[in-house]
Amino acid sequence: MLRVRPPSSALLLALAAAPVAAQTKAPVRPAPRARAARPAARPATGPAGFIKEFGTMWTFDAPPLEYWKATYGFTPDQAWLDHVRLASVRLSNCSSSFVSPDGLIMTNHHCARACISAVSPADTNYQRTGFVARSLGEEKRCPGFYVDQLQSMSDVTGRIRSAATAAAAAKRVAQRDSVIGAIQRECAGGDSSTICQVVTFYQGGMYSLYKYHRFSDIRLVMAPEEELSFFGGDPDNFTYPRYDLDISLLRAYQDDKPMPVRNYLKWSKAGAKEGDLVLVTGNPGSTGRLLTMAQLEWLRDVQYPGTLAALERNNRMYQDLSAGSEAAKRKYENTIFGLQNSIKAITGYRAGLLDSTIMAKKAAFEREFRGRIAADPKLRAEYGGAWDAIAGAIREERGFALQSRYYGFGGSQLLGLAGALVRLPEQAALPDSARLPQYRGDGLARIKGLIARDMPVDLELERRLLAAQLTAARAELPATDPFLRAVLAGRSPEDVAAALLKDTKLGDAAVRQQLVDGGAKAVAGSDDPLIVVARKIAPLSRAFATRSARLEAVISANAEKVGQAIYAAYGKALPPDATFTLRITDGVMKGYPMNGTEAPAQTSFYGLFARSAEFGDKPPFHIPERWATRKDSLTMTKPFDFVTTNDIIGGNSGSPMINRDAEVVGLIFDGNIESLPNRFIFTDEVARSVGVHSVGIIEALRKIYQADRIANELEGVNGGV
Amino acid sequence: MLRVRPPSSALLLALAAAPVAAQTKAPVRPAPRARAARPAARPATGPAGFIKEFGTMWTFDAPPLEYWKATYGFTPDQAWLDHVRLASVRLSNCSSSFVSPDGLIMTNHHCARACISAVSPADTNYQRTGFVARSLGEEKRCPGFYVDQLQSMSDVTGRIRSAATAAAAAKRVAQRDSVIGAIQRECAGGDSSTICQVVTFYQGGMYSLYKYHRFSDIRLVMAPEEELSFFGGDPDNFTYPRYDLDISLLRAYQDDKPMPVRNYLKWSKAGAKEGDLVLVTGNPGSTGRLLTMAQLEWLRDVQYPGTLAALERNNRMYQDLSAGSEAAKRKYENTIFGLQNSIKAITGYRAGLLDSTIMAKKAAFEREFRGRIAADPKLRAEYGGAWDAIAGAIREERGFALQSRYYGFGGSQLLGLAGALVRLPEQAALPDSARLPQYRGDGLARIKGLIARDMPVDLELERRLLAAQLTAARAELPATDPFLRAVLAGRSPEDVAAALLKDTKLGDAAVRQQLVDGGAKAVAGSDDPLIVVARKIAPLSRAFATRSARLEAVISANAEKVGQAIYAAYGKALPPDATFTLRITDGVMKGYPMNGTEAPAQTSFYGLFARSAEFGDKPPFHIPERWATRKDSLTMTKPFDFVTTNDIIGGNSGSPMINRDAEVVGLIFDGNIESLPNRFIFTDEVARSVGVHSVGIIEALRKIYQADRIANELEGVNGGV
Repeated sequence: MLRVRPPSSALLLALAAAPVAAQTKAPVRPAPRARAARPAARPATGPAGFIKEFGTMWTFDAPPLEYWKATYGFTPDQAWLDHVRLASVRLSNCSSSFVSPDGLIMTNHHCARACISAVSPADTNYQRTGFVARSLGEEKRCPGFYVDQLQSMSDVTGRIRSAATAAAAAKRVAQRDSVIGAIQRECAGGDSSTICQVVTFYQGGMYSLYKYHRFSDIRLVMAPEEELSFFGGDPDNFTYPRYDLDISLLRAYQDDKPMPVRNYLKWSKAGAKEGDLVLVTGNPGSTGRLLTMAQLEWLRDVQYPGTLAALERNNRMYQDLSAGSEAAKRKYENTIFGLQNSIKAITGYRAGLLDSTIMAKKAAFEREFRGRIAADPKLRAEYGGAWDAIAGAIREERGFALQSRYYGFGGSQLLGLAGALVRLPEQAALPDSARLPQYRGDGLARIKGLIARDMPVDLELERRLLAAQLTAARAELPATDPFLRAVLAGRSPEDVAAALLKDTKLGDAAVRQQLVDGGAKAVAGSDDPLIVVARKIAPLSRAFATRSARLEAVISANAEKVGQAIYAAYGKALPPDATFTLRITDGVMKGYPMNGTEAPAQTSFYGLFARSAEFGDKPPFHIPERWATRKDSLTMTKPFDFVTTNDIIGGNSGSPMINRDAEVVGLIFDGNIESLPNRFIFTDEVARSVGVHSVGIIEALRKIYQADRIANELEGVNGGV
Repeated sequence: MLRVRPPSSALLLALAAAPVAAQTKAPVRPAPRARAARPAARPATGPAGFIKEFGTMWTFDAPPLEYWKATYGFTPDQAWLDHVRLASVRLSNCSSSFVSPDGLIMTNHHCARACISAVSPADTNYQRTGFVARSLGEEKRCPGFYVDQLQSMSDVTGRIRSAATAAAAAKRVAQRDSVIGAIQRECAGGDSSTICQVVTFYQGGMYSLYKYHRFSDIRLVMAPEEELSFFGGDPDNFTYPRYDLDISLLRAYQDDKPMPVRNYLKWSKAGAKEGDLVLVTGNPGSTGRLLTMAQLEWLRDVQYPGTLAALERNNRMYQDLSAGSEAAKRKYENTIFGLQNSIKAITGYRAGLLDSTIMAKKAAFEREFRGRIAADPKLRAEYGGAWDAIAGAIREERGFALQSRYYGFGGSQLLGLAGALVRLPEQAALPDSARLPQYRGDGLARIKGLIARDMPVDLELERRLLAAQLTAARAELPATDPFLRAVLAGRSPEDVAAALLKDTKLGDAAVRQQLVDGGAKAVAGSDDPLIVVARKIAPLSRAFATRSARLEAVISANAEKVGQAIYAAYGKALPPDATFTLRITDGVMKGYPMNGTEAPAQTSFYGLFARSAEFGDKPPFHIPERWATRKDSLTMTKPFDFVTTNDIIGGNSGSPMINRDAEVVGLIFDGNIESLPNRFIFTDEVARSVGVHSVGIIEALRKIYQADRIANELEGVNGGV
């Protein structure tokens, strides 16, 4: 399943974890550079400089009109583009769109989970039963939900560059952050429904001001049973053929009435058929297509294997816990789903990096690109050294990758908090620029807040997590390792974890607050077992963390140069890496070779009942009662899900799929397993986006949910709501 | 689809083709060896010396009772084994079984194609319409059909070894052939319904006399529409999930009455479910599990790529021809199916050889095996040099692989006949042992017969085939190559092919007979353009063909040593390579990981209609009318096809799948794409046999074909026929 955000516990875990080297994410706040050279040469291949490997996540201010015309005979005018942009709205974690003049919003079921749970009455779980509002009065307000509509984009690269001119890097960062803050404030003008964000494209090659209007009264209109929205569960997740009704319908309200919307997407009468052009608008979260070979090899050889081992360790542990009782099963099922989803996704990303054909293409592009930079003296002087600088830093990080992985406060959340408590006074005493990155700027205050925040503690879980982490450390580090000596001192990981957690008081937020308030002295004097062990770990970890932070800064600064070089060499002919901002991607509805045969371009309702029957109707292939009862009313041969060659990734969940007349033909909800390597290099031989077909949506609404009110509104028949 | 036999034109093509080096097939007539050492050590792994990589194609005289008991708690007695053996009967190209006391025989639809076509009336094509005999009287005799029932097996290794003792290899071969002939004649005793065959196991490690009773009055009882028996066509061929009713029912008659049969397989009431033990009896055609690493690498690097290129060339050509008209489409569809089937199969075999994990396992076994042989002075002396001898010969063959591929009379059948005409007098003049292998012994007479046989000639096809062959030769051979100079002399392949075929008279069998009768003088004097060019090719080809034949003899003799060494080292604990004789293989009904998710252990009728709908009901996914009309009478959730871990290959088509009570639970018709590498090394992580489920067979017979007469007979209800 496409997800832009990690599970909510990840923030705290990230805080607790040892430093993670060579992150794939684009630097959020790159240091400013001298004026980027003008986009120079155009790339050699395809119409209008199109280089397929970089995909088709186009920004709305640089649509590839020439390439669209040449490829599809598709020639949208500005009004088309504006209309589609305004109809495409962003949720906090997903994409969505207006699909009626009365503010109806279409997104995925998995994007509205929080709302569906929140509005469920005490005696009913709408996740399980589904929900259909039979009238406007039954539509239920989603607490905390909003959608942002993109009003405008403007290039602010010049203003930022000219404001950030100091020689010292730290000063330059401050200047840049300051001007970005000013730009955003000016833009919002104190209006809480206007949201302004400066977006960093090309790892710092270009800055753009994105201005949104926020709609904050969002209500739940319809959601199917989760058994149908996520039919096939973890096994079918990230695969195709697929049979999921992963939809939910929301509505924007204003003054307690449906919001009138001018720019909404009309419903296609016929839906899409194989071979049709399909456009998808939405907010892809993150890609790594500009990463250098050295960064990709780091991910392949060091970071992903480490992450996967940890995820698998935790997955096994939660499965064990879960097997204990029905209550435990319910308690941990979301966590297990998140872990399995991540394992499947990262395994897929890594499969791309292990694919010699893909890596050879990446290497060929890098050679060509570096050749272009080297051929231009100005570009060479500015950017030519970036690749080797990144490779050198990564080489050094590889030398202590195991220490980076285990020297820290990982495993238990409470140990993570103890580590933060020990580090806090020590980091606070340093000048800002000398601190570990997460303690710089407002990081210090943020971490204090996180430490003192009340949160539930599950000691049994903590104990198992910590024991698993220490067991892994013991298996990978040499027997004489100082961390192992300090923490285990010859005892078993299970014994150590049990002893540390037995007597700790850190589960109490008030105790933590006292330690924060007491500062270095309180921490030094504490005999809480977790603080005692964190005091032993901190000095061991510090040297590696500091060294890693220095190398990360080198990698980040040079990655920014690479991004600027890309922009200088190819301009907007290459779409920038994903930034969870609005993009439009073109593709075609198309089957593909799979497993020795052909995957069809679309599935059918027959297929849903087939897959259920073939697994004995057992979860996650169970057909919910409403479907079982009403199945004979379905036209079984109608299309249900379908695939296209659009370029999407986590964050695109809930994206509308439209035809050249801007009519809805479907709803993105996933990519197939073959699409996961697209994170690093876009291909469309077998990689596919997976959506719910518009015909299937209407069929289910009318026949299964008997929701003609909603289907009529979507199809624009019988007037308004 | 599992096929044991190449298309019928292959015999003639093989005659015409340039020598094919390092064949995978076990030598049919190995030179006799000194007495094999007694089976010595037992292999190290698993119960009763079971080595999984060699699979489970057990002979009925060496069932792995200990391994079955340990693995499944399955303990059949001799009566069980005899019963199942006698119920399992062999067609000329397939496997089958008796499934009623009245001689009903179950096999695949694709095994009975020849009969189904032959018995179709002038105005009806039973392939298209299907056929159901409503009474005994409507059952139709299949011309040329017979089934062979295995009566006994006896080890004749000793008699053959003691009769073939001459020092000279050629004399030894003659002695062996003579004693084999005598054994077979004695066994048959002049009874035309008794068929006796000496079978060579372990590439000459063991000889066994197989005695069969032949039933020669076989009639067609039921066959579904080919659209259902081969639903999914070439795309779904060799894949799973699958939705094929690949069944036909025949009946053995005696004195114009149904044959009473004591040993028939009863029908299982419940059928198989996931996890159940399933046994399959049948006649696997050929495997290459004893091949050495050098032989496997030759297949991977030289033979398979060359074969695939030729098949793909021909496939494109037939597709072009086929596109011309509806008549052409019908004319070539079987040929195209055969080509596509071979391309898919060989691509799958080669995929195994390209898989580094599989090859590492093969290499590890070869090291272990050679280590065993080296550790025993007697075995080392006898067999120790075999691997290096094979590798050396293959190394030499690689040096002229391109000449072997193109120096010859390939492409056109008529050129092949011209080549044979030119070679015939020249080879006849040599002593037998100095001839090319196919001209030795009775080969000379056989080739004369083939040349003179009347046969249809399609000149347009001949011209295209020859042009394609010459185009490939020109692309691969250096420009200065003597063959190209002699044949093309600077002209285009199309022009040369057209010129050669325009004026040739060799399409006339009488003309060919005259040239055979006229001998060397007539051939030398002929001005037929194909004879003229064949006279130019023959001397160029001769040196390579002779050299290749010498190296093939080295490979063959040493492959035989390897086979004897296997038998000496492991005995019958390793099942011998497939020999198109009766085997029993054990397995389990089981889904498997596929395409990022799980393939179900069974499919359903829902799935059939789903796959059709998802491809718009277009061929090869078209639902025939009888099914479309009667679909609502089906219980859609019932199992249709299913998968097991049994060890099968081409020749097993039509094999019954039975439970531990010897009741039918299904009918083998294919393997999945992941099973193709099993040709060389058996694995069962994802490789599966594909069968029609017994429940699906009955459901289709009763609901779609309204053939209760037959379903009752299978289920043993309502008495006899």
